[in-house]
Amino acid sequence: MLCVVTEPASRRRLDAEARRRQLIDVGLEVLSREPREQVATDRIAEAAGISRGLLFHYFPTKRAYHVAVVQAAADRLLEVITPDPEMPPRTRLRQSLVAYIGFVSANEALYVSLVRGAAGRDDGLREIFEKTRAEIVERVVGNLGLHSGPPLLQLALYGWIGFVEESTLDWLRRRDVPREQLVGLQEEVLLRAVAPAGVTV
Amino acid sequence: MLCVVTEPASRRRLDAEARRRQLIDVGLEVLSREPREQVATDRIAEAAGISRGLLFHYFPTKRAYHVAVVQAAADRLLEVITPDPEMPPRTRLRQSLVAYIGFVSANEALYVSLVRGAAGRDDGLREIFEKTRAEIVERVVGNLGLHSGPPLLQLALYGWIGFVEESTLDWLRRRDVPREQLVGLQEEVLLRAVAPAGVTV
Repeated sequence: MLCVVTEPASRRRLDAEARRRQLIDVGLEVLSREPREQVATDRIAEAAGISRGLLFHYFPTKRAYHVAVVQAAADRLLEVITPDPEMPPRTRLRQSLVAYIGFVSANEALYVSLVRGAAGRDDGLREIFEKTRAEIVERVVGNLGLHSGPPLLQLALYGWIGFVEESTLDWLRRRDVPREQLVGLQEEVLLRAVAPAGVTV
Repeated sequence: MLCVVTEPASRRRLDAEARRRQLIDVGLEVLSREPREQVATDRIAEAAGISRGLLFHYFPTKRAYHVAVVQAAADRLLEVITPDPEMPPRTRLRQSLVAYIGFVSANEALYVSLVRGAAGRDDGLREIFEKTRAEIVERVVGNLGLHSGPPLLQLALYGWIGFVEESTLDWLRRRDVPREQLVGLQEEVLLRAVAPAGVTV
Protein backbone atom coordinates (compact mmCIF):
# COMPACT_ATOMS: atom_id res chain seq x y z
CA MET A 1 0.00 0.00 0.00
CA LEU A 2 1.27 3.41 -0.94
CA CYS A 3 0.64 6.21 1.50
CA VAL A 4 0.91 9.73 0.29
CA VAL A 5 1.30 12.13 3.16
CA THR A 6 0.28 15.61 2.20
CA GLU A 7 0.70 18.73 4.26
CA PRO A 8 -2.49 20.69 5.04
CA ALA A 9 -3.25 23.08 2.22
CA SER A 10 -2.61 26.09 4.41
CA ARG A 11 0.94 24.95 5.09
CA ARG A 12 1.85 24.38 1.48
CA ARG A 13 4.93 26.19 0.40
CA LEU A 14 3.91 29.17 -1.64
CA ASP A 15 6.37 31.32 -3.42
CA ALA A 16 6.98 34.68 -1.79
CA GLU A 17 4.71 36.75 -4.03
CA ALA A 18 1.82 34.31 -3.76
CA ARG A 19 2.22 34.20 0.01
CA ARG A 20 2.18 37.97 0.28
CA ARG A 21 -0.92 38.02 -1.90
CA GLN A 22 -2.59 35.40 0.28
CA LEU A 23 -1.76 37.32 3.45
CA ILE A 24 -3.19 40.50 1.94
CA ASP A 25 -6.37 38.63 0.98
CA VAL A 26 -6.72 37.39 4.56
CA GLY A 27 -6.21 40.98 5.73
CA LEU A 28 -8.87 42.29 3.36
CA GLU A 29 -11.23 39.69 4.74
CA VAL A 30 -10.53 40.28 8.44
CA LEU A 31 -9.88 44.03 8.37
CA SER A 32 -13.02 44.74 6.38
CA ARG A 33 -15.06 43.82 9.40
CA GLU A 34 -12.94 44.84 12.37
CA PRO A 35 -10.81 47.91 13.05
CA ARG A 36 -7.16 47.01 12.90
CA GLU A 37 -6.57 48.05 16.51
CA GLN A 38 -8.71 45.07 17.52
CA VAL A 39 -7.03 42.56 15.27
CA ALA A 40 -3.97 40.80 16.66
CA THR A 41 -1.31 39.76 14.18
CA ASP A 42 -1.63 36.23 15.58
CA ARG A 43 -5.15 35.98 14.20
CA ILE A 44 -4.04 37.00 10.72
CA ALA A 45 -1.21 34.46 10.79
CA GLU A 46 -3.57 31.77 12.05
CA ALA A 47 -6.15 32.48 9.35
CA ALA A 48 -3.37 32.20 6.75
CA GLY A 49 -2.12 29.00 8.36
CA ILE A 50 1.36 30.30 9.11
CA SER A 51 3.28 31.36 12.19
CA ARG A 52 3.43 34.94 13.41
CA GLY A 53 7.17 34.87 12.76
CA LEU A 54 6.64 33.94 9.13
CA LEU A 55 4.09 36.75 8.72
CA PHE A 56 6.82 39.16 9.82
CA HIS A 57 9.11 37.59 7.25
CA TYR A 58 6.83 38.88 4.51
CA PHE A 59 5.93 42.18 6.17
CA PRO A 60 8.56 43.65 8.48
CA THR A 61 6.05 45.35 10.81
CA LYS A 62 2.34 45.28 11.58
CA ARG A 63 2.15 48.76 10.07
CA ALA A 64 3.78 47.64 6.81
CA TYR A 65 1.24 44.85 6.61
CA HIS A 66 -1.62 47.22 7.25
CA VAL A 67 -0.37 49.65 4.59
CA ALA A 68 -0.24 46.77 2.06
CA VAL A 69 -3.81 45.75 2.92
CA VAL A 70 -5.14 49.31 2.66
CA GLN A 71 -3.37 49.71 -0.69
CA ALA A 72 -5.04 46.52 -1.93
CA ALA A 73 -8.41 47.83 -0.72
CA ALA A 74 -7.83 51.14 -2.53
CA ASP A 75 -6.94 49.23 -5.73
CA ARG A 76 -10.12 47.20 -5.46
CA LEU A 77 -12.19 50.29 -4.84
CA LEU A 78 -10.81 51.91 -7.99
CA GLU A 79 -11.50 48.70 -9.87
CA VAL A 80 -15.12 48.34 -8.79
CA ILE A 81 -16.05 51.96 -9.46
CA THR A 82 -14.98 51.73 -13.10
CA PRO A 83 -18.24 52.16 -15.03
CA ASP A 84 -19.26 50.72 -18.38
CA PRO A 85 -17.58 53.04 -20.94
CA GLU A 86 -20.45 52.47 -23.36
CA MET A 87 -22.94 54.22 -21.10
CA PRO A 88 -23.78 57.94 -21.20
CA PRO A 89 -22.06 60.21 -18.59
CA ARG A 90 -24.93 60.40 -16.08
CA THR A 91 -25.34 56.62 -16.10
CA ARG A 92 -21.58 56.15 -15.60
CA LEU A 93 -21.66 58.53 -12.65
CA ARG A 94 -24.53 56.63 -11.05
CA GLN A 95 -22.88 53.26 -11.70
CA SER A 96 -19.68 54.45 -10.03
CA LEU A 97 -21.50 55.82 -7.00
CA VAL A 98 -23.61 52.68 -6.56
CA ALA A 99 -20.44 50.56 -6.78
CA TYR A 100 -18.63 52.87 -4.35
CA ILE A 101 -21.35 52.61 -1.71
CA GLY A 102 -21.58 48.85 -2.27
CA PHE A 103 -17.84 48.41 -1.73
CA VAL A 104 -17.82 50.64 1.31
CA SER A 105 -20.80 48.89 2.80
CA ALA A 106 -19.09 45.50 2.46
CA ASN A 107 -15.70 46.76 3.68
CA GLU A 108 -16.70 49.22 6.33
CA ALA A 109 -13.70 48.98 8.67
CA LEU A 110 -11.19 49.26 5.81
CA TYR A 111 -13.04 52.26 4.40
CA VAL A 112 -13.00 54.05 7.73
CA SER A 113 -9.33 53.16 7.99
CA LEU A 114 -8.66 54.58 4.53
CA VAL A 115 -10.56 57.83 5.03
CA ARG A 116 -9.89 58.50 8.71
CA GLY A 117 -6.64 56.78 9.61
CA ALA A 118 -5.19 57.67 6.27
CA ALA A 119 -5.90 61.30 6.86
CA GLY A 120 -3.73 61.18 9.93
CA ARG A 121 -0.05 61.21 10.56
CA ASP A 122 0.91 57.93 8.93
CA ASP A 123 2.68 59.02 5.74
CA GLY A 124 2.23 55.65 4.02
CA LEU A 125 -1.52 55.63 4.56
CA ARG A 126 -1.87 59.30 3.78
CA GLU A 127 -0.16 58.80 0.45
CA ILE A 128 -2.52 55.96 -0.50
CA PHE A 129 -5.45 58.11 0.52
CA GLU A 130 -4.32 61.16 -1.47
CA LYS A 131 -3.48 59.13 -4.56
CA THR A 132 -6.77 57.24 -4.48
CA ARG A 133 -8.66 60.48 -4.18
CA ALA A 134 -6.75 62.15 -6.99
CA GLU A 135 -7.44 59.11 -9.15
CA ILE A 136 -11.17 59.23 -8.32
CA VAL A 137 -11.27 62.95 -9.19
CA GLU A 138 -9.51 62.23 -12.49
CA ARG A 139 -11.94 59.46 -13.34
CA VAL A 140 -14.97 61.56 -12.48
CA VAL A 141 -13.58 64.29 -14.71
CA GLY A 142 -13.08 61.75 -17.49
CA ASN A 143 -16.50 60.21 -16.98
CA LEU A 144 -18.14 63.57 -17.22
CA GLY A 145 -16.35 64.07 -20.51
CA LEU A 146 -14.17 66.90 -19.17
CA HIS A 147 -10.52 66.81 -20.01
CA SER A 148 -9.31 69.85 -18.20
CA GLY A 149 -11.10 72.51 -16.33
CA PRO A 150 -10.84 75.85 -14.62
CA PRO A 151 -9.50 76.00 -11.02
CA LEU A 152 -13.06 76.39 -9.76
CA LEU A 153 -13.85 72.94 -11.18
CA GLN A 154 -10.99 71.36 -9.27
CA LEU A 155 -12.19 73.03 -6.05
CA ALA A 156 -15.66 71.70 -6.74
CA LEU A 157 -14.43 68.16 -7.37
CA TYR A 158 -12.26 68.02 -4.25
CA GLY A 159 -15.10 69.48 -2.25
CA TRP A 160 -17.40 66.85 -3.70
CA ILE A 161 -15.04 64.01 -2.75
CA GLY A 162 -15.20 65.39 0.80
CA PHE A 163 -18.99 65.41 0.53
CA VAL A 164 -19.07 61.80 -0.64
CA GLU A 165 -16.68 60.64 2.09
CA GLU A 166 -18.40 62.42 4.96
CA SER A 167 -21.95 61.60 3.92
CA THR A 168 -20.87 57.97 3.46
CA LEU A 169 -19.22 57.85 6.90
CA ASP A 170 -22.35 59.34 8.45
CA TRP A 171 -24.53 56.85 6.56
CA LEU A 172 -22.39 53.93 7.79
CA ARG A 173 -22.83 55.06 11.39
CA ARG A 174 -26.61 55.07 11.21
CA ARG A 175 -27.81 53.52 7.96
CA ASP A 176 -31.20 55.13 8.44
CA VAL A 177 -31.51 56.39 4.88
CA PRO A 178 -32.05 54.07 1.88
CA ARG A 179 -28.87 53.61 -0.12
CA GLU A 180 -30.48 55.03 -3.26
CA GLN A 181 -31.20 58.31 -1.45
CA LEU A 182 -27.56 58.61 -0.41
CA VAL A 183 -26.44 58.00 -4.00
CA GLY A 184 -29.06 60.45 -5.31
CA LEU A 185 -27.83 63.12 -2.90
CA GLN A 186 -24.18 62.64 -3.88
CA GLU A 187 -25.11 62.74 -7.55
CA GLU A 188 -27.22 65.88 -7.19
CA VAL A 189 -24.46 67.67 -5.26
CA LEU A 190 -21.88 66.90 -7.94
CA LEU A 191 -24.09 68.28 -10.68
CA ARG A 192 -24.69 71.46 -8.66
CA ALA A 193 -21.08 71.84 -7.52
CA VAL A 194 -19.65 71.82 -11.04
CA ALA A 195 -22.26 74.27 -12.37
CA PRO A 196 -20.53 77.48 -11.13
CA ALA A 197 -17.44 76.35 -13.10
CA GLY A 198 -19.61 76.45 -16.20
CA VAL A 199 -19.97 72.69 -16.47
CA THR A 200 -23.29 71.08 -17.20
CA VAL A 201 -23.76 67.33 -17.30
CA MET B 1 18.23 108.12 44.10
CA LEU B 2 15.85 105.25 44.18
CA CYS B 3 16.44 102.46 41.74
CA VAL B 4 13.60 100.12 40.95
CA VAL B 5 14.78 96.90 39.40
CA THR B 6 12.07 95.21 37.40
CA GLU B 7 12.18 91.81 35.80
CA PRO B 8 11.58 91.68 32.04
CA ALA B 9 7.86 91.46 31.37
CA SER B 10 8.19 87.99 29.96
CA ARG B 11 9.71 86.70 33.19
CA ARG B 12 7.02 88.09 35.43
CA ARG B 13 5.46 85.56 37.65
CA LEU B 14 2.06 84.72 36.30
CA ASP B 15 -0.38 82.56 38.08
CA ALA B 16 -0.75 79.09 36.60
CA GLU B 17 -3.94 79.76 34.63
CA ALA B 18 -2.62 82.97 33.11
CA ARG B 19 0.63 81.26 32.19
CA ARG B 20 -1.17 78.41 30.49
CA ARG B 21 -3.27 80.95 28.62
CA GLN B 22 -0.16 82.86 27.55
CA LEU B 23 1.54 79.68 26.34
CA ILE B 24 -1.55 78.77 24.33
CA ASP B 25 -1.58 82.24 22.77
CA VAL B 26 2.05 81.84 21.79
CA GLY B 27 1.17 78.46 20.29
CA LEU B 28 -1.74 79.93 18.33
CA GLU B 29 0.65 82.53 16.96
CA VAL B 30 3.48 80.16 16.03
CA LEU B 31 1.46 77.08 15.02
CA SER B 32 -0.83 79.13 12.78
CA ARG B 33 2.06 79.64 10.40
CA GLU B 34 4.14 76.48 10.72
CA PRO B 35 3.26 72.81 10.99
CA ARG B 36 3.88 71.57 14.48
CA GLU B 37 6.40 68.97 13.30
CA GLN B 38 8.68 71.85 12.42
CA VAL B 39 8.26 73.74 15.66
CA ALA B 40 10.62 72.79 18.46
CA THR B 41 9.30 73.17 21.98
CA ASP B 42 12.33 75.33 22.71
CA ARG B 43 11.04 77.99 20.36
CA ILE B 44 7.67 78.10 22.07
CA ALA B 45 9.32 78.39 25.47
CA GLU B 46 11.64 81.10 24.19
CA ALA B 47 8.78 83.09 22.66
CA ALA B 48 6.97 82.89 26.00
CA GLY B 49 10.13 83.90 27.87
CA ILE B 50 10.33 80.76 29.96
CA SER B 51 12.48 77.64 30.06
CA ARG B 52 11.60 74.46 28.25
CA GLY B 53 11.37 72.75 31.63
CA LEU B 54 8.78 75.24 32.84
CA LEU B 55 6.72 74.72 29.66
CA PHE B 56 6.56 71.04 30.55
CA HIS B 57 5.43 72.00 34.04
CA TYR B 58 2.25 73.45 32.52
CA PHE B 59 1.80 70.84 29.80
CA PRO B 60 3.17 67.38 30.59
CA THR B 61 4.01 66.54 26.97
CA LYS B 62 4.40 68.28 23.63
CA ARG B 63 1.27 66.45 22.51
CA ALA B 64 -0.76 67.75 25.49
CA TYR B 65 0.38 71.25 24.61
CA HIS B 66 -0.58 70.79 20.98
CA VAL B 67 -4.02 69.46 21.93
CA ALA B 68 -4.58 72.55 24.12
CA VAL B 69 -3.59 74.87 21.27
CA VAL B 70 -5.81 73.09 18.73
CA GLN B 71 -8.71 73.24 21.21
CA ALA B 72 -8.16 77.00 21.58
CA ALA B 73 -8.10 77.34 17.79
CA ALA B 74 -11.35 75.38 17.50
CA ASP B 75 -12.95 77.64 20.16
CA ARG B 76 -11.88 80.74 18.25
CA LEU B 77 -13.16 79.31 14.99
CA LEU B 78 -16.59 78.71 16.56
CA GLU B 79 -16.49 82.23 17.98
CA VAL B 80 -15.67 83.99 14.72
CA ILE B 81 -18.23 82.12 12.64
CA THR B 82 -21.09 83.24 14.89
CA PRO B 83 -23.19 85.49 12.64
CA ASP B 84 -25.30 88.49 13.53
CA PRO B 85 -28.57 86.97 14.83
CA GLU B 86 -30.53 89.96 13.50
CA MET B 87 -29.75 89.07 9.90
CA PRO B 88 -31.88 86.84 7.65
CA PRO B 89 -30.80 83.17 7.24
CA ARG B 90 -29.01 83.52 3.90
CA THR B 91 -27.00 86.50 5.15
CA ARG B 92 -26.07 84.63 8.33
CA LEU B 93 -24.86 81.68 6.25
CA ARG B 94 -22.72 83.94 4.10
CA GLN B 95 -21.32 85.80 7.13
CA SER B 96 -20.33 82.50 8.73
CA LEU B 97 -18.64 81.20 5.59
CA VAL B 98 -16.74 84.44 4.99
CA ALA B 99 -15.56 84.39 8.62
CA TYR B 100 -14.62 80.71 8.35
CA ILE B 101 -12.46 81.25 5.25
CA GLY B 102 -10.93 84.35 6.84
CA PHE B 103 -9.96 82.44 9.96
CA VAL B 104 -8.61 79.51 8.01
CA SER B 105 -6.64 81.77 5.73
CA ALA B 106 -4.97 83.46 8.70
CA ASN B 107 -4.38 80.21 10.59
CA GLU B 108 -3.54 77.83 7.83
CA ALA B 109 -1.23 75.42 9.63
CA LEU B 110 -3.60 75.07 12.59
CA TYR B 111 -6.53 74.46 10.28
CA VAL B 112 -4.69 71.73 8.40
CA SER B 113 -3.72 70.29 11.77
CA LEU B 114 -7.34 70.35 12.92
CA VAL B 115 -8.81 68.78 9.79
CA ARG B 116 -6.04 66.37 8.78
CA GLY B 117 -4.08 65.54 11.91
CA ALA B 118 -7.25 65.48 13.92
CA ALA B 119 -8.77 62.96 11.61
CA GLY B 120 -5.97 60.59 12.43
CA ARG B 121 -5.17 58.35 15.28
CA ASP B 122 -4.72 60.90 18.03
CA ASP B 123 -7.86 60.49 20.13
CA GLY B 124 -7.54 63.91 21.78
CA LEU B 125 -7.36 65.74 18.46
CA ARG B 126 -9.99 63.58 16.88
CA GLU B 127 -12.40 64.41 19.67
CA ILE B 128 -11.85 68.15 19.22
CA PHE B 129 -12.36 67.73 15.50
CA GLU B 130 -15.59 65.73 15.84
CA LYS B 131 -17.04 68.06 18.48
CA THR B 132 -16.20 71.18 16.49
CA ARG B 133 -17.83 69.71 13.43
CA ALA B 134 -20.94 68.63 15.29
CA GLU B 135 -21.18 72.13 16.74
CA ILE B 136 -20.85 73.71 13.28
CA VAL B 137 -23.57 71.41 11.93
CA GLU B 138 -25.83 72.37 14.84
CA ARG B 139 -25.22 76.07 14.24
CA VAL B 140 -25.86 75.80 10.53
CA VAL B 141 -29.11 73.99 11.32
CA GLY B 142 -30.02 76.76 13.76
CA ASN B 143 -29.03 79.52 11.36
CA LEU B 144 -31.16 78.06 8.64
CA GLY B 145 -34.06 78.10 11.08
CA LEU B 146 -34.27 74.30 11.27
CA HIS B 147 -34.69 72.75 14.64
CA SER B 148 -34.72 69.12 13.77
CA GLY B 149 -34.70 67.33 10.51
CA PRO B 150 -35.04 64.03 8.75
CA PRO B 151 -32.01 61.69 8.56
CA LEU B 152 -31.41 62.80 4.98
CA LEU B 153 -30.81 66.35 6.26
CA GLN B 154 -28.12 65.16 8.66
CA LEU B 155 -26.41 63.23 5.87
CA ALA B 156 -26.53 66.35 3.71
CA LEU B 157 -25.07 68.54 6.46
CA TYR B 158 -22.21 66.16 7.28
CA GLY B 159 -21.53 65.78 3.59
CA TRP B 160 -21.50 69.55 3.27
CA ILE B 161 -18.99 69.96 6.11
CA GLY B 162 -16.78 67.54 4.17
CA PHE B 163 -17.29 69.68 1.08
CA VAL B 164 -16.34 72.86 2.94
CA GLU B 165 -13.24 71.28 4.50
CA GLU B 166 -11.91 69.70 1.33
CA SER B 167 -12.61 72.63 -0.97
CA THR B 168 -10.97 74.90 1.62
CA LEU B 169 -7.89 72.65 1.89
CA ASP B 170 -7.62 72.60 -1.91
CA TRP B 171 -8.02 76.38 -2.03
CA LEU B 172 -5.27 76.85 0.57
CA ARG B 173 -2.88 74.74 -1.50
CA ARG B 174 -3.30 76.82 -4.63
CA ARG B 175 -5.30 79.99 -3.87
CA ASP B 176 -6.01 80.42 -7.56
CA VAL B 177 -9.72 81.16 -7.13
CA PRO B 178 -11.02 84.41 -5.59
CA ARG B 179 -12.23 83.90 -2.04
CA GLU B 180 -15.75 85.04 -2.91
CA GLN B 181 -16.05 82.28 -5.50
CA LEU B 182 -15.06 79.67 -2.94
CA VAL B 183 -17.67 81.01 -0.51
CA GLY B 184 -20.26 81.19 -3.29
CA LEU B 185 -19.60 77.56 -4.20
CA GLN B 186 -19.89 76.36 -0.60
CA GLU B 187 -23.10 78.33 -0.15
CA GLU B 188 -24.63 77.02 -3.37
CA VAL B 189 -23.77 73.42 -2.47
CA LEU B 190 -25.41 73.72 0.94
CA LEU B 191 -28.63 75.05 -0.57
CA ARG B 192 -28.70 72.20 -3.08
CA ALA B 193 -27.67 69.51 -0.62
CA VAL B 194 -30.51 70.23 1.79
CA ALA B 195 -33.14 70.38 -0.97
CA PRO B 196 -33.69 66.58 -1.27
CA ALA B 197 -34.50 66.60 2.46
CA GLY B 198 -37.33 68.98 1.67
CA VAL B 199 -35.55 72.04 3.05
CA THR B 200 -35.54 75.31 1.16
CA VAL B 201 -33.66 78.34 2.38
